[in-house]
Amino acid sequence: MIRVAIVGFGNIGHSVLEALKASQDFEIVGIVSQSLEPGAVGEIQVVRDIHALKDVKVAILCAPSRAVPDLAAQLLAEGICTVDSYDIHTTVYEVHERLDAIAKAHGTAAVMSAGWDPGSDSMVRAILEAMAPKGITYTNFGPGMSMGHTVAVKAIPGVKKALSMTIPLGTGIHRRMVYVELEAGADFDTVASAIKTDAYFCHDETHVIQVDDVDALKDMGHGVDLVRKGVSGSTQNQRMQFIMSINNPASTGQILVASARAVVKQKPGCYTMIELAPIDLLYGEKEDLIRRLV
Amino acid sequence: MIRVAIVGFGNIGHSVLEALKASQDFEIVGIVSQSLEPGAVGEIQVVRDIHALKDVKVAILCAPSRAVPDLAAQLLAEGICTVDSYDIHTTVYEVHERLDAIAKAHGTAAVMSAGWDPGSDSMVRAILEAMAPKGITYTNFGPGMSMGHTVAVKAIPGVKKALSMTIPLGTGIHRRMVYVELEAGADFDTVASAIKTDAYFCHDETHVIQVDDVDALKDMGHGVDLVRKGVSGSTQNQRMQFIMSINNPASTGQILVASARAVVKQKPGCYTMIELAPIDLLYGEKEDLIRRLV
Repeated sequence: MIRVAIVGFGNIGHSVLEALKASQDFEIVGIVSQSLEPGAVGEIQVVRDIHALKDVKVAILCAPSRAVPDLAAQLLAEGICTVDSYDIHTTVYEVHERLDAIAKAHGTAAVMSAGWDPGSDSMVRAILEAMAPKGITYTNFGPGMSMGHTVAVKAIPGVKKALSMTIPLGTGIHRRMVYVELEAGADFDTVASAIKTDAYFCHDETHVIQVDDVDALKDMGHGVDLVRKGVSGSTQNQRMQFIMSINNPASTGQILVASARAVVKQKPGCYTMIELAPIDLLYGEKEDLIRRLV
Repeated sequence: MIRVAIVGFGNIGHSVLEALKASQDFEIVGIVSQSLEPGAVGEIQVVRDIHALKDVKVAILCAPSRAVPDLAAQLLAEGICTVDSYDIHTTVYEVHERLDAIAKAHGTAAVMSAGWDPGSDSMVRAILEAMAPKGITYTNFGPGMSMGHTVAVKAIPGVKKALSMTIPLGTGIHRRMVYVELEAGADFDTVASAIKTDAYFCHDETHVIQVDDVDALKDMGHGVDLVRKGVSGSTQNQRMQFIMSINNPASTGQILVASARAVVKQKPGCYTMIELAPIDLLYGEKEDLIRRLV
């Protein structure tokens, strides 16, 4: 049994708990949360500080991405393996190098950026490139809610509630459908203009729609349509496609748990998912897995 | 530069050569073939026996699957790493264990069953199971030529030439479309009945069609539609799908070459593709690969 702690208990933390309960190889030592009341999650211990939990082997970090690098660095240095779904693509490599050095110095291991994108999609992109080294891969997202874009809209004056949906138009081009509930007295045209000129939106086709009730529009479903057309050897027009229709936090939570299983099998260091063997993500005997899956 | 030899020069061997030529990190030491004339492949050395080649690091085995285990065992014991596309699903684990012991005893490594199925499809099946541990995966093949079924038809008395096409009907069920050119004097109904009652065909919907020219029907295209619907944590109805439309030998050849790149990075032992990290299959700097693919 792998002794794990869940650090942070928002949408992802909830989903991680569900995935851990459905697994046979984990012991949930406790949940670390600043807001949750003790006793709020049945018999599972709730603490404010991870040091109040004993013998944690792996911490599954369900905090916001910006808080992840420092948190992971601290725990790795204290002898606890970490798993996270850090999703700021542009700085993945810098965080990787930082955590790798710390993990190696302290004999621990980290799996980072372990969600569905970055994460399982990254593994698929790597496999498709191995199958057809020349060519183009397009990752098309949605339809689904973009957390980052929604937060950006909420920060605009006059916006009470917001929802930014990502709509795939193909070849990696996306439309933004933004639904807003306005503060009393706010002017719609002013808000719409502020959204369309925001750095998050100015490069995409963006439509802003005023609604009475944003909450009524929200669902946690998301999708991916990842396409590669390329060349194997000297053979052109090799076509490959990976499609998903998923519950966003449920998929992230499940992949974090699979990665918590994998992290204890790695040598000290930090790993993105393309650096993990798929078999390490799975529960079961090696013989059975090879017989069933190969 | 990884020094490789191509062992066997049929369809797959040809495709391996094309993929090696398109790669930047391999040096082709030579081709081992019993039938090819010296000088038949440009400046590449052609030999009857691999021992005539110097300092081969990896042998890419393009021999028939039945010949692969003994051939791999011999080369691994002689200090040469091997890569193969052994495709007899039912005995993969036994061959894995045999080669693993030999490789470990001699400090070499093998990657086995490295084609598209088994192979890259196996990796995808493992990833999908990690993403939704409960559920069913269906691998639907085709439309495309089945080598095994075609050989089985050719062995039936009265058949001059044959082509067995695999047609996907969904949920892992396949139709067999068998095209036959008959020997002079052979009775079509007798041949059709023999095919339909053969062990290769008796469990599938099989149609036998007599044609004047089987060669005119042959193309090397193939396809896969791999589908999983399952549960992540407690969330039902997670849907994932992997689709390919490919040239069969070109894909196999390219994956063998990617695996030849991976095999030299592994510790001694034998590996199926689900035991390999996707990044090991790729040419390039780790930093660039992580930045581009994660």
